Amino acid sequence: MYHADVVINLKKGVADPEGVNTKKALELLGFDVKEVKSAKIFRIILDAKSKNDAKKTTEEMCRKLLANPVIHDYTLRIMVK
Amino acid sequence: MYHADVVINLKKGVADPEGVNTKKALELLGFDVKEVKSAKIFRIILDAKSKNDAKKTTEEMCRKLLANPVIHDYTLRIMVK
Repeated sequence: MYHADVVINLKKGVADPEGVNTKKALELLGFDVKEVKSAKIFRIILDAKSKNDAKKTTEEMCRKLLANPVIHDYTLRIMVK
Repeated sequence: MYHADVVINLKKGVADPEGVNTKKALELLGFDVKEVKSAKIFRIILDAKSKNDAKKTTEEMCRKLLANPVIHDYTLRIMVK
């Protein structure tokens, strides 16, 4: 069993209204923040023959469903569970 | 300048419809997954006197705005930028 952490980030230049509004809200609360960016994680547990195989499967999941290549970058971390 | 990665996870037992539906969608695409959990990251850039100070400020942000203690756990990672 493998545990894959897929982090989905917005590409540079893509609007991040959630980040912008979180920054505004933190400032209204009195915090001095320079930047806030939002991102998503999917923690996936899957069966695979090897770590490399788990990585390939997870990359395919990103391409087919989890990430939109127009606006998203993704990073993977595969761990043995 | 410090870079704080705040990971907001749903607590154990709290419903995660996004994770459940992502799992279903992956299965419809032919992937064999055991579990999918969703989580959120806020990447915050802030000024602070020390790493410890940055950690304290970020913890306060979580308590006051970013995490809902009823349903969320959070983990922090503070890096010098």
